[in-house]
Amino acid sequence: MSEFRQNISTGEWVIVAPERTKRPADYCRERQKTQVPAHSESCPFCPGNEHKCKEPVYEVKSDGKWTLRVVPNIFAAVNRQSPPVRAKDGLYLSAGGYGEAEVIIEAPSHNADIAFMPVEQVQDVIRAYRCRFNELSEDPNIAIVNIFKNYGPTAGASLVHPHSQIIATMVSPPHITEQIFYARRAFNTWGRCVYCDMIKEELAVRKRLVMESEHFIAFCPFASKYPYEMRIMPRKHSAIFGTITPEEESDFAFILQSVLRKLSLLLDYPDYNYYIRSVPNSDGLVQYYHWHLAITPRLVQAAGFELGTRIYINPSLPETCAAELREI
Amino acid sequence: MSEFRQNISTGEWVIVAPERTKRPADYCRERQKTQVPAHSESCPFCPGNEHKCKEPVYEVKSDGKWTLRVVPNIFAAVNRQSPPVRAKDGLYLSAGGYGEAEVIIEAPSHNADIAFMPVEQVQDVIRAYRCRFNELSEDPNIAIVNIFKNYGPTAGASLVHPHSQIIATMVSPPHITEQIFYARRAFNTWGRCVYCDMIKEELAVRKRLVMESEHFIAFCPFASKYPYEMRIMPRKHSAIFGTITPEEESDFAFILQSVLRKLSLLLDYPDYNYYIRSVPNSDGLVQYYHWHLAITPRLVQAAGFELGTRIYINPSLPETCAAELREI
Repeated sequence: MSEFRQNISTGEWVIVAPERTKRPADYCRERQKTQVPAHSESCPFCPGNEHKCKEPVYEVKSDGKWTLRVVPNIFAAVNRQSPPVRAKDGLYLSAGGYGEAEVIIEAPSHNADIAFMPVEQVQDVIRAYRCRFNELSEDPNIAIVNIFKNYGPTAGASLVHPHSQIIATMVSPPHITEQIFYARRAFNTWGRCVYCDMIKEELAVRKRLVMESEHFIAFCPFASKYPYEMRIMPRKHSAIFGTITPEEESDFAFILQSVLRKLSLLLDYPDYNYYIRSVPNSDGLVQYYHWHLAITPRLVQAAGFELGTRIYINPSLPETCAAELREI
Repeated sequence: MSEFRQNISTGEWVIVAPERTKRPADYCRERQKTQVPAHSESCPFCPGNEHKCKEPVYEVKSDGKWTLRVVPNIFAAVNRQSPPVRAKDGLYLSAGGYGEAEVIIEAPSHNADIAFMPVEQVQDVIRAYRCRFNELSEDPNIAIVNIFKNYGPTAGASLVHPHSQIIATMVSPPHITEQIFYARRAFNTWGRCVYCDMIKEELAVRKRLVMESEHFIAFCPFASKYPYEMRIMPRKHSAIFGTITPEEESDFAFILQSVLRKLSLLLDYPDYNYYIRSVPNSDGLVQYYHWHLAITPRLVQAAGFELGTRIYINPSLPETCAAELREI
């Protein structure tokens, strides 16, 4: 029997249709397994090709060589030369494409993978996220700083070299505004952060838990849209990712790498996206929102029903996915 | 220069990034052009294989043979055996998978294409949409009837045989509820349907118009999320698709087929989805919503930024797309 499930933090419904349930192997694609080399002459992110990128805005070095770099995106969808102003265009509203787009080159090695690189390197990635997040947030014309990763071609990655991205924009995503509106309503009703409630529930029932660390928990959401979807949430309440402490950073690197490794091993290196959700700068340290990271494996294709209704049909039970991820 | 554009009917923003603009040919995929036969032994929708489907709930016949059939979906994500009740699941809310899933087999011919079949056949398709929409809407446990089409594998179609789908659900999609909330707020502010305003604006400025017919207009929305995205809207205000008259039905078939043909010829038969938006049954003939059909070609891949923010980066100017579609 399939069932509808509601996302308690957004009000969105999904259909969990276990009649269609697949085993992990059913999701593993037939792929040409090409050996990725450790260095590529044509890759703009590889050492020796630094001139193909803009000047770095952040760099980590060891023995005189860089081990991580953050560079402005050459193919930026937004930039700070665009005017940060809104204007009427007939009936409609438009705004200059003001913002900043940056690429975090996570390692010099062309074939490194965040799921398997030394955990210290992942810590450097998280620290770069935090530093760039906080610096970009200081621009009063930036409404929100979005940090995300595209892994694999069906997740939108055009380059193999391990990297994540930042796009800071002058407008807040209405979806996040709605989510915050919904969270505030829950707070006004129950007097508690709905995400704190969720953490408590997941730690109590445990069936959707993937793993826990000192400062974080990772679980498959009750109303997962996608098979093997996961959330990593800090146990400590904070609305803003940029408040993460160095100690929490190390722990976050550990749990993020651990669950990505589980995902890669269980599903034979599936394409995935992850993104960090944090309040827009207009909101500050509100009590009703809770920053988190969402991981969405790209195993199924959204079709007309999902585009039209935004109700997703998930062929896998989140409880089953969590159990499989726990055990690997 | 890129710009943000706001969807006036939802408040959603998109980034139109014409630095990335592509010509139609850039979107045409390298494909193995396999000749699709007019009949396939293994296709459950082909004549002779009727036993592979459930009993039809609607049928059009000519000379004793069927020319269109609507059958319950064998792989239904929802069904009317599930209980139409909501229940608490710990902290969360779930509901029985109550609903109905049907497939409209648009023609007996395995290789027919809605963009190129005789227009009378498309009229039969639209009439089937209307009849099934109205019949399913009579079930008091159905909140909304969703009609959509998946064309091609990247649009989620698993079968080649020309077909569309209906999924009627016991819950209303929160996205549509939000859209209606937004439209009502605009109505309360301006005293007019925001979609009627949009039709008036598009007919006045004409630069995003693709074509117009007696009862409908087709245009590329100002805040298009996708390249070559289109809307077909009835000139006459109505919140409910099921109110379409036989005369409007013929005209709707004509304009739908015309724009799908333009899309197919301009972009070499791209995969696409279309879906009909109409108010949930709880709302009735409200003055602030306006039913319409949306066409979303699947030419670009949503990545982490889109999943995280739901702000889409559109590499094509809607005005350029409309001009190209007009001219073909």
